[in-house]
Amino acid sequence: MNLGCLYGVGVGTGNPELITLKALRILQTVSVVAYPASEDGNSFARSIVAEFLQSNQIEVPIVLPFKLEKSAQAFYNKAAEELAVHLSGGKDVAVLCEGDPFFYGSFMYIFNRLSQRFTTEVIPGISSVMASAAMIGVPLTYRNDVFMVLSGILSEEVLREKLQVADAAVIIKLGRNFRKVKQVLQELGLVERAKYIEYATMENQRVLSINEVEVETVPYFSLIVIPSQLKELGVWS
Amino acid sequence: MNLGCLYGVGVGTGNPELITLKALRILQTVSVVAYPASEDGNSFARSIVAEFLQSNQIEVPIVLPFKLEKSAQAFYNKAAEELAVHLSGGKDVAVLCEGDPFFYGSFMYIFNRLSQRFTTEVIPGISSVMASAAMIGVPLTYRNDVFMVLSGILSEEVLREKLQVADAAVIIKLGRNFRKVKQVLQELGLVERAKYIEYATMENQRVLSINEVEVETVPYFSLIVIPSQLKELGVWS
Repeated sequence: MNLGCLYGVGVGTGNPELITLKALRILQTVSVVAYPASEDGNSFARSIVAEFLQSNQIEVPIVLPFKLEKSAQAFYNKAAEELAVHLSGGKDVAVLCEGDPFFYGSFMYIFNRLSQRFTTEVIPGISSVMASAAMIGVPLTYRNDVFMVLSGILSEEVLREKLQVADAAVIIKLGRNFRKVKQVLQELGLVERAKYIEYATMENQRVLSINEVEVETVPYFSLIVIPSQLKELGVWS
Repeated sequence: MNLGCLYGVGVGTGNPELITLKALRILQTVSVVAYPASEDGNSFARSIVAEFLQSNQIEVPIVLPFKLEKSAQAFYNKAAEELAVHLSGGKDVAVLCEGDPFFYGSFMYIFNRLSQRFTTEVIPGISSVMASAAMIGVPLTYRNDVFMVLSGILSEEVLREKLQVADAAVIIKLGRNFRKVKQVLQELGLVERAKYIEYATMENQRVLSINEVEVETVPYFSLIVIPSQLKELGVWS
Protein backbone atom coordinates (compact mmCIF):
# COMPACT_ATOMS: atom_id res chain seq x y z
CA MET A 1 0.00 0.00 0.00
CA ASN A 2 1.22 3.49 -0.78
CA LEU A 3 2.08 5.72 2.13
CA GLY A 4 0.17 8.94 2.64
CA CYS A 5 1.72 12.37 2.17
CA LEU A 6 2.32 14.74 5.07
CA TYR A 7 1.51 18.41 4.44
CA GLY A 8 2.47 21.31 6.69
CA VAL A 9 -0.12 23.91 5.76
CA GLY A 10 0.38 27.57 6.65
CA VAL A 11 -3.03 29.08 7.38
CA GLY A 12 -1.90 32.66 7.96
CA THR A 13 -2.78 35.02 10.74
CA GLY A 14 -6.51 34.77 11.31
CA ASN A 15 -8.43 36.08 8.30
CA PRO A 16 -9.58 32.98 6.37
CA GLU A 17 -9.21 34.90 3.10
CA LEU A 18 -5.47 35.04 3.68
CA ILE A 19 -4.89 31.36 3.07
CA THR A 20 -3.45 30.43 -0.30
CA LEU A 21 -5.28 28.66 -3.11
CA LYS A 22 -2.90 25.74 -2.61
CA ALA A 23 -3.62 25.53 1.11
CA LEU A 24 -7.33 25.48 0.31
CA ARG A 25 -6.91 22.71 -2.25
CA ILE A 26 -4.84 20.55 0.11
CA LEU A 27 -7.25 21.15 3.00
CA GLN A 28 -10.19 20.03 0.93
CA THR A 29 -8.58 16.86 -0.40
CA VAL A 30 -6.72 15.27 2.52
CA SER A 31 -8.30 12.54 4.62
CA VAL A 32 -6.85 13.73 7.91
CA VAL A 33 -6.54 17.27 9.31
CA ALA A 34 -4.41 17.81 12.43
CA TYR A 35 -3.92 21.04 14.37
CA PRO A 36 -2.48 22.38 17.61
CA ALA A 37 -5.17 22.61 20.27
CA SER A 38 -5.42 23.58 23.89
CA GLU A 39 -6.57 21.18 26.59
CA ASP A 40 -10.14 22.43 26.28
CA GLY A 41 -10.11 21.48 22.60
CA ASN A 42 -9.92 24.99 21.18
CA SER A 43 -7.68 25.43 18.15
CA PHE A 44 -6.94 28.82 16.67
CA ALA A 45 -5.46 27.25 13.54
CA ARG A 46 -8.59 25.16 13.01
CA SER A 47 -10.85 28.15 13.58
CA ILE A 48 -9.19 30.02 10.71
CA VAL A 49 -10.08 27.35 8.15
CA ALA A 50 -13.17 25.84 9.80
CA GLU A 51 -15.42 26.87 6.91
CA PHE A 52 -13.27 24.93 4.44
CA LEU A 53 -13.08 21.59 6.26
CA GLN A 54 -15.12 18.62 5.04
CA SER A 55 -17.44 16.66 7.29
CA ASN A 56 -15.88 13.33 6.28
CA GLN A 57 -12.36 14.31 7.30
CA ILE A 58 -10.70 12.73 10.33
CA GLU A 59 -9.58 15.46 12.74
CA VAL A 60 -6.60 15.01 15.04
CA PRO A 61 -6.06 17.70 17.68
CA ILE A 62 -2.43 17.97 18.80
CA VAL A 63 -3.02 18.89 22.42
CA LEU A 64 -0.24 20.65 24.29
CA PRO A 65 -0.86 21.51 27.93
CA PHE A 66 -0.66 25.26 28.48
CA LYS A 67 2.12 24.90 31.04
CA LEU A 68 4.30 22.33 29.38
CA GLU A 69 7.81 23.41 30.26
CA LYS A 70 10.00 20.38 29.70
CA SER A 71 7.43 17.89 28.61
CA ALA A 72 6.52 18.95 25.07
CA GLN A 73 8.74 16.33 23.51
CA ALA A 74 6.45 13.58 24.78
CA PHE A 75 3.33 15.30 23.43
CA TYR A 76 4.85 15.77 19.99
CA ASN A 77 6.09 12.17 20.02
CA LYS A 78 2.58 10.98 20.75
CA ALA A 79 0.99 13.21 18.10
CA ALA A 80 3.58 12.14 15.52
CA GLU A 81 2.88 8.48 16.19
CA GLU A 82 -0.86 9.02 15.80
CA LEU A 83 -0.30 10.77 12.47
CA ALA A 84 2.16 8.06 11.40
CA VAL A 85 -0.59 5.46 11.72
CA HIS A 86 -2.77 7.40 9.27
CA LEU A 87 0.16 8.01 6.89
CA SER A 88 1.20 4.36 7.01
CA GLY A 89 -2.36 3.45 6.15
CA GLY A 90 -2.15 5.52 2.98
CA LYS A 91 -4.05 8.56 4.22
CA ASP A 92 -2.80 12.05 3.38
CA VAL A 93 -2.46 14.25 6.46
CA ALA A 94 -2.51 18.07 6.61
CA VAL A 95 -1.11 19.65 9.76
CA LEU A 96 -2.41 23.19 10.14
CA CYS A 97 0.01 25.84 11.29
CA GLU A 98 -0.69 29.48 12.15
CA GLY A 99 1.34 31.85 10.00
CA ASP A 100 4.05 30.00 8.11
CA PRO A 101 5.00 26.42 9.06
CA PHE A 102 8.79 26.90 8.98
CA PHE A 103 8.91 30.42 10.44
CA TYR A 104 8.69 30.04 14.22
CA GLY A 105 6.00 27.48 13.46
CA SER A 106 4.77 24.54 15.52
CA PHE A 107 4.75 22.24 12.48
CA MET A 108 8.52 21.84 12.70
CA TYR A 109 8.19 19.51 15.68
CA ILE A 110 6.01 17.18 13.62
CA PHE A 111 8.26 17.66 10.59
CA ASN A 112 11.35 16.63 12.53
CA ARG A 113 9.65 13.43 13.64
CA LEU A 114 8.04 12.30 10.38
CA SER A 115 9.72 13.81 7.33
CA GLN A 116 12.34 11.05 7.16
CA ARG A 117 9.61 8.42 6.99
CA PHE A 118 6.95 10.04 4.82
CA THR A 119 6.86 12.30 1.79
CA THR A 120 6.43 15.77 3.24
CA GLU A 121 5.45 19.04 1.62
CA VAL A 122 5.24 22.46 3.22
CA ILE A 123 2.72 25.01 1.95
CA PRO A 124 4.05 28.44 2.95
CA GLY A 125 1.64 30.78 4.69
CA ILE A 126 1.22 34.49 5.28
CA SER A 127 3.42 35.35 8.23
CA SER A 128 2.35 37.75 10.97
CA VAL A 129 5.40 39.81 9.98
CA MET A 130 4.01 40.66 6.56
CA ALA A 131 0.37 40.72 7.65
CA SER A 132 1.07 43.18 10.46
CA ALA A 133 2.90 45.67 8.26
CA ALA A 134 0.05 45.45 5.75
CA MET A 135 -2.61 46.03 8.40
CA ILE A 136 -0.72 48.91 10.03
CA GLY A 137 -0.26 50.36 6.56
CA VAL A 138 3.45 51.02 6.77
CA PRO A 139 6.16 49.78 4.40
CA LEU A 140 8.46 47.52 6.41
CA THR A 141 11.71 47.24 4.44
CA TYR A 142 13.23 48.94 1.40
CA ARG A 143 16.04 48.00 -0.94
CA ASN A 144 19.07 46.94 1.12
CA ASP A 145 17.65 47.31 4.63
CA VAL A 146 18.85 44.91 7.28
CA PHE A 147 15.68 43.32 8.65
CA MET A 148 15.43 41.44 11.92
CA VAL A 149 12.87 39.40 13.82
CA LEU A 150 13.42 39.33 17.57
CA SER A 151 11.62 37.55 20.37
CA GLY A 152 10.44 39.57 23.34
CA ILE A 153 11.70 36.76 25.52
CA LEU A 154 15.29 37.88 24.85
CA SER A 155 16.99 39.91 27.58
CA GLU A 156 17.01 43.70 27.59
CA GLU A 157 20.73 43.66 26.80
CA VAL A 158 20.34 41.34 23.82
CA LEU A 159 17.32 43.22 22.47
CA ARG A 160 19.21 46.51 22.71
CA GLU A 161 22.31 45.14 21.04
CA LYS A 162 20.42 43.47 18.16
CA LEU A 163 18.04 46.35 17.48
CA GLN A 164 20.97 48.68 17.06
CA VAL A 165 22.22 46.80 14.02
CA ALA A 166 18.85 46.56 12.25
CA ASP A 167 17.26 49.03 9.83
CA ALA A 168 13.81 47.56 10.44
CA ALA A 169 12.54 44.94 12.85
CA VAL A 170 9.57 43.04 14.17
CA ILE A 171 9.41 41.98 17.81
CA ILE A 172 7.29 38.89 18.46
CA LYS A 173 6.30 37.08 21.67
CA LEU A 174 5.34 40.17 23.60
CA GLY A 175 2.79 39.25 26.27
CA ARG A 176 4.42 39.66 29.65
CA ASN A 177 7.61 40.83 27.93
CA PHE A 178 5.98 44.02 26.68
CA ARG A 179 7.17 46.21 29.55
CA LYS A 180 10.79 45.15 29.03
CA VAL A 181 10.56 45.67 25.27
CA LYS A 182 9.03 49.12 25.75
CA GLN A 183 11.91 50.04 28.06
CA VAL A 184 14.40 49.10 25.32
CA LEU A 185 12.46 51.07 22.70
CA GLN A 186 12.54 54.10 24.99
CA GLU A 187 16.28 53.81 25.51
CA LEU A 188 16.88 53.59 21.76
CA GLY A 189 14.49 56.42 20.89
CA LEU A 190 12.23 54.07 18.91
CA VAL A 191 8.92 54.64 20.72
CA GLU A 192 7.55 57.08 18.16
CA ARG A 193 8.58 55.03 15.16
CA ALA A 194 7.38 51.66 16.46
CA LYS A 195 3.78 50.49 16.12
CA TYR A 196 1.95 47.87 18.13
CA ILE A 197 -0.65 45.53 16.62
CA GLU A 198 -2.73 42.77 18.22
CA TYR A 199 -4.92 40.16 16.53
CA ALA A 200 -3.70 41.28 13.10
CA THR A 201 -6.16 40.57 10.25
CA MET A 202 -8.86 39.47 12.71
CA GLU A 203 -12.09 41.22 13.60
CA ASN A 204 -10.74 42.34 16.95
CA GLN A 205 -7.51 43.73 15.46
CA ARG A 206 -6.13 46.85 17.15
CA VAL A 207 -3.24 49.08 16.06
CA LEU A 208 -1.82 51.24 18.83
CA SER A 209 1.13 53.48 19.50
CA ILE A 210 3.52 52.04 22.06
CA ASN A 211 2.37 54.45 24.75
CA GLU A 212 -1.30 53.54 24.24
CA VAL A 213 -0.80 49.85 25.03
CA GLU A 214 -2.14 48.58 28.35
CA VAL A 215 1.04 46.96 29.62
CA GLU A 216 -0.70 44.41 31.81
CA THR A 217 -2.97 42.88 29.19
CA VAL A 218 -0.86 42.38 26.09
CA PRO A 219 -2.11 39.21 24.37
CA TYR A 220 0.02 36.49 22.79
CA PHE A 221 -1.17 37.45 19.31
CA SER A 222 0.54 40.81 19.22
CA LEU A 223 3.76 42.23 17.89
CA ILE A 224 5.69 45.44 17.42
CA VAL A 225 6.71 46.66 13.98
CA ILE A 226 9.67 49.01 13.65
CA PRO A 227 9.52 50.07 10.02
CA SER A 228 12.42 51.21 7.89
CA GLN A 229 13.14 54.91 7.93
CA LEU A 230 14.63 54.79 4.49
CA LYS A 231 11.53 55.65 2.47
CA GLU A 232 13.00 57.16 -0.64
CA LEU A 233 15.01 59.84 1.06
CA GLY A 234 18.25 60.10 -0.78
CA VAL A 235 17.81 56.76 -2.45
CA TRP A 236 17.24 57.94 -5.96
CA SER A 237 17.92 61.65 -5.49
CA MET B 1 -18.21 60.77 -7.51
CA ASN B 2 -16.60 58.31 -5.12
CA LEU B 3 -12.88 57.79 -5.44
CA GLY B 4 -11.56 54.35 -6.28
CA CYS B 5 -9.61 52.22 -3.83
CA LEU B 6 -5.93 51.43 -4.30
CA TYR B 7 -4.86 47.87 -3.53
CA GLY B 8 -1.29 46.66 -3.21
CA VAL B 9 -1.63 42.96 -3.97
CA GLY B 10 1.10 40.50 -3.03
CA VAL B 11 1.18 37.74 -5.65
CA GLY B 12 3.84 35.56 -4.07
CA THR B 13 6.89 34.01 -5.62
CA GLY B 14 5.82 32.47 -8.89
CA ASN B 15 3.43 29.58 -8.35
CA PRO B 16 -0.08 30.96 -9.04
CA GLU B 17 -1.52 28.63 -6.38
CA LEU B 18 0.40 30.59 -3.74
CA ILE B 19 -1.73 33.70 -4.02
CA THR B 20 -4.30 34.21 -1.29
CA LEU B 21 -8.06 33.91 -1.66
CA LYS B 22 -8.26 37.63 -0.92
CA ALA B 23 -5.75 38.51 -3.62
CA LEU B 24 -7.76 36.43 -6.09
CA ARG B 25 -11.01 38.16 -5.12
CA ILE B 26 -9.50 41.63 -5.44
CA LEU B 27 -7.82 40.76 -8.75
CA GLN B 28 -11.11 39.59 -10.23
CA THR B 29 -13.15 42.59 -9.14
CA VAL B 30 -10.99 45.68 -9.78
CA SER B 31 -11.33 47.69 -12.96
CA VAL B 32 -7.63 48.41 -13.33
CA VAL B 33 -4.63 46.11 -12.86
CA ALA B 34 -1.15 47.65 -12.77
CA TYR B 35 2.18 45.82 -12.55
CA PRO B 36 5.91 46.41 -12.85
CA ALA B 37 7.10 45.62 -16.36
CA SER B 38 10.31 45.75 -18.30
CA GLU B 39 10.76 47.89 -21.40
CA ASP B 40 9.84 44.97 -23.64
CA GLY B 41 6.52 44.69 -21.83
CA ASN B 42 7.25 41.54 -19.86
CA SER B 43 5.96 41.45 -16.33
CA PHE B 44 6.81 38.64 -13.94
CA ALA B 45 4.12 39.77 -11.48
CA ARG B 46 1.49 39.72 -14.24
CA SER B 47 2.61 36.30 -15.46
CA ILE B 48 1.95 34.80 -12.02
CA VAL B 49 -1.73 35.78 -12.06
CA ALA B 50 -2.36 35.90 -15.81
CA GLU B 51 -4.94 33.10 -15.66
CA PHE B 52 -7.04 35.06 -13.16
CA LEU B 53 -7.23 38.39 -15.00
CA GLN B 54 -10.44 39.42 -16.74
CA SER B 55 -10.56 40.49 -20.38
CA ASN B 56 -12.45 43.68 -19.57
CA GLN B 57 -9.85 44.95 -17.11
CA ILE B 58 -7.69 47.95 -17.94
CA GLU B 59 -4.01 47.03 -17.65
CA VAL B 60 -1.34 49.56 -16.73
CA PRO B 61 2.27 48.42 -17.02
CA ILE B 62 4.63 50.36 -14.74
CA VAL B 63 7.69 50.36 -16.96
CA LEU B 64 11.07 50.85 -15.34
CA PRO B 65 14.10 50.90 -17.64
CA PHE B 66 16.52 48.11 -16.74
CA LYS B 67 19.34 50.58 -16.12
CA LEU B 68 17.58 53.29 -14.25
CA GLU B 69 20.14 54.51 -11.72
CA LYS B 70 18.97 57.90 -10.57
CA SER B 71 15.85 58.25 -12.64
CA ALA B 72 13.34 55.88 -11.04
CA GLN B 73 11.61 58.71 -9.18
CA ALA B 74 10.36 60.14 -12.46
CA PHE B 75 9.02 56.77 -13.64
CA TYR B 76 7.15 56.17 -10.39
CA ASN B 77 5.80 59.73 -10.49
CA LYS B 78 4.47 59.12 -13.98
CA ALA B 79 2.93 55.76 -13.08
CA ALA B 80 1.34 57.19 -9.93
CA GLU B 81 -0.26 60.00 -11.91
CA GLU B 82 -1.67 57.55 -14.43
CA LEU B 83 -3.17 55.46 -11.62
CA ALA B 84 -4.46 58.60 -9.89
CA VAL B 85 -6.55 59.41 -12.96
CA HIS B 86 -8.27 56.03 -12.73
CA LEU B 87 -8.73 56.33 -8.95
CA SER B 88 -10.11 59.84 -9.24
CA GLY B 89 -12.56 58.54 -11.81
CA GLY B 90 -13.91 56.03 -9.26
CA LYS B 91 -12.09 52.97 -10.55
CA ASP B 92 -10.51 50.51 -8.13
CA VAL B 93 -6.87 49.80 -8.94
CA ALA B 94 -4.83 46.72 -7.99
CA VAL B 95 -1.06 47.06 -8.18
CA LEU B 96 0.56 43.63 -8.39
CA CYS B 97 3.68 43.05 -6.39
CA GLU B 98 5.93 39.98 -6.36
CA GLY B 99 6.22 38.46 -2.90
CA ASP B 100 4.81 40.80 -0.29
CA PRO B 101 4.07 44.46 -1.10
CA PHE B 102 5.68 45.97 2.04
CA PHE B 103 8.63 43.58 2.32
CA TYR B 104 11.30 44.86 -0.07
CA GLY B 105 8.43 45.37 -2.50
CA SER B 106 8.07 47.73 -5.44
CA PHE B 107 4.54 48.71 -4.41
CA MET B 108 5.91 51.02 -1.72
CA TYR B 109 6.91 53.60 -4.31
CA ILE B 110 3.33 53.80 -5.52
CA PHE B 111 2.03 53.67 -1.93
CA ASN B 112 4.17 56.62 -0.91
CA ARG B 113 2.78 58.69 -3.77
CA LEU B 114 -0.92 57.85 -3.53
CA SER B 115 -1.91 56.60 -0.07
CA GLN B 116 -2.46 60.12 1.25
CA ARG B 117 -4.94 60.83 -1.53
CA PHE B 118 -6.80 57.53 -1.91
CA THR B 119 -8.04 54.77 0.37
CA THR B 120 -5.30 52.16 0.21
CA GLU B 121 -5.27 48.55 1.29
CA VAL B 122 -2.38 46.12 1.21
CA ILE B 123 -2.99 42.40 0.70
CA PRO B 124 0.01 40.58 2.15
CA GLY B 125 1.67 37.95 -0.02
CA ILE B 126 3.85 34.90 0.41
CA SER B 127 7.40 36.15 0.71
CA SER B 128 10.35 34.45 -0.96
CA VAL B 129 11.75 34.06 2.57
CA MET B 130 9.01 31.67 3.64
CA ALA B 131 8.54 30.09 0.20
CA SER B 132 12.23 29.25 -0.10
CA ALA B 133 12.46 27.53 3.27
CA ALA B 134 9.34 25.54 2.39
CA MET B 135 10.71 24.49 -0.99
CA ILE B 136 14.14 23.58 0.39
CA GLY B 137 12.35 21.64 3.10
CA VAL B 138 14.22 23.04 6.05
CA PRO B 139 12.75 24.74 9.14
CA LEU B 140 14.02 28.32 9.15
CA THR B 141 13.55 29.64 12.70
CA TYR B 142 12.61 28.15 16.07
CA ARG B 143 11.34 29.68 19.29
CA ASN B 144 13.54 32.66 20.19
CA ASP B 145 15.92 32.64 17.25
CA VAL B 146 17.21 35.98 15.98
CA PHE B 147 16.30 36.03 12.30
CA MET B 148 17.80 38.37 9.74
CA VAL B 149 17.30 39.28 6.10
CA LEU B 150 20.39 40.70 4.42
CA SER B 151 20.98 42.05 0.95
CA GLY B 152 23.88 40.65 -1.06
CA ILE B 153 24.62 44.22 -2.08
CA LEU B 154 26.01 44.93 1.40
CA SER B 155 29.79 44.92 1.78
CA GLU B 156 31.73 41.86 2.89
CA GLU B 157 32.46 43.56 6.19
CA VAL B 158 28.83 44.39 6.90
CA LEU B 159 27.61 40.93 5.85
CA ARG B 160 30.17 39.31 8.12
CA GLU B 161 29.32 41.51 11.08
CA LYS B 162 25.54 41.06 10.74
CA LEU B 163 25.59 37.32 10.09
CA GLN B 164 27.54 36.79 13.29
CA VAL B 165 24.68 38.09 15.42
CA ALA B 166 21.92 36.06 13.70
CA ASP B 167 20.71 32.55 14.54
CA ALA B 168 19.15 32.17 11.09
CA ALA B 169 19.23 34.35 7.99
CA VAL B 170 18.19 34.76 4.40
CA ILE B 171 20.43 36.58 1.93
CA ILE B 172 18.58 38.19 -0.97
CA LYS B 173 19.79 40.10 -4.06
CA LEU B 174 22.52 37.66 -4.99
CA GLY B 175 23.19 37.86 -8.74
CA ARG B 176 26.63 39.35 -9.21
CA ASN B 177 27.07 39.52 -5.44
CA PHE B 178 27.12 35.74 -5.08
CA ARG B 179 30.90 35.41 -5.13
CA LYS B 180 31.28 37.96 -2.35
CA VAL B 181 28.54 36.33 -0.27
CA LYS B 182 30.10 32.88 -0.74
CA GLN B 183 33.42 34.27 0.49
CA VAL B 184 31.74 35.51 3.68
CA LEU B 185 29.99 32.18 4.20
CA GLN B 186 33.34 30.41 3.85
CA GLU B 187 34.97 32.72 6.39
CA LEU B 188 32.16 32.11 8.87
CA GLY B 189 32.04 28.35 8.33
CA LEU B 190 28.48 28.53 6.99
CA VAL B 191 28.95 26.90 3.57
CA GLU B 192 27.68 23.48 4.64
CA ARG B 193 24.70 24.81 6.54
CA ALA B 194 23.53 27.31 3.91
CA LYS B 195 21.35 26.31 0.96
CA TYR B 196 20.91 28.10 -2.35
CA ILE B 197 17.59 28.24 -4.20
CA GLU B 198 16.67 29.89 -7.49
CA TYR B 199 13.22 30.41 -9.01
CA ALA B 200 11.57 29.15 -5.82
CA THR B 201 8.08 27.65 -6.36
CA MET B 202 8.45 27.89 -10.16
CA GLU B 203 8.82 25.07 -12.66
CA ASN B 204 12.49 25.82 -13.14
CA GLN B 205 13.25 25.89 -9.41
CA ARG B 206 16.65 24.54 -8.38
CA VAL B 207 18.00 23.89 -4.89
CA LEU B 208 21.78 23.65 -4.69
CA SER B 209 24.52 23.52 -2.13
CA ILE B 210 26.66 26.66 -2.11
CA ASN B 211 29.55 24.89 -3.82
CA GLU B 212 27.34 23.64 -6.65
CA VAL B 213 26.26 27.11 -7.75
CA GLU B 214 27.71 28.40 -11.03
CA VAL B 215 29.05 31.70 -9.71
CA GLU B 216 28.83 33.53 -13.03
CA THR B 217 25.18 32.85 -13.79
CA VAL B 218 23.28 33.44 -10.56
CA PRO B 219 19.87 34.87 -11.49
CA TYR B 220 18.06 37.71 -9.73
CA PHE B 221 15.39 35.33 -8.42
CA SER B 222 17.65 33.44 -6.08
CA LEU B 223 18.53 33.53 -2.43
CA ILE B 224 20.51 31.78 0.26
CA VAL B 225 18.83 30.30 3.32
CA ILE B 226 20.87 29.81 6.49
CA PRO B 227 18.52 27.82 8.70
CA SER B 228 18.53 27.77 12.47
CA GLN B 229 20.72 25.15 14.07
CA LEU B 230 18.52 25.00 17.11
CA LYS B 231 16.24 22.16 16.09
CA GLU B 232 15.20 20.73 19.39
CA LEU B 233 18.61 20.09 20.81
CA GLY B 234 18.48 21.00 24.43
CA VAL B 235 15.33 22.98 24.02
CA TRP B 236 12.98 20.70 25.86
CA SER B 237 15.52 18.27 27.21
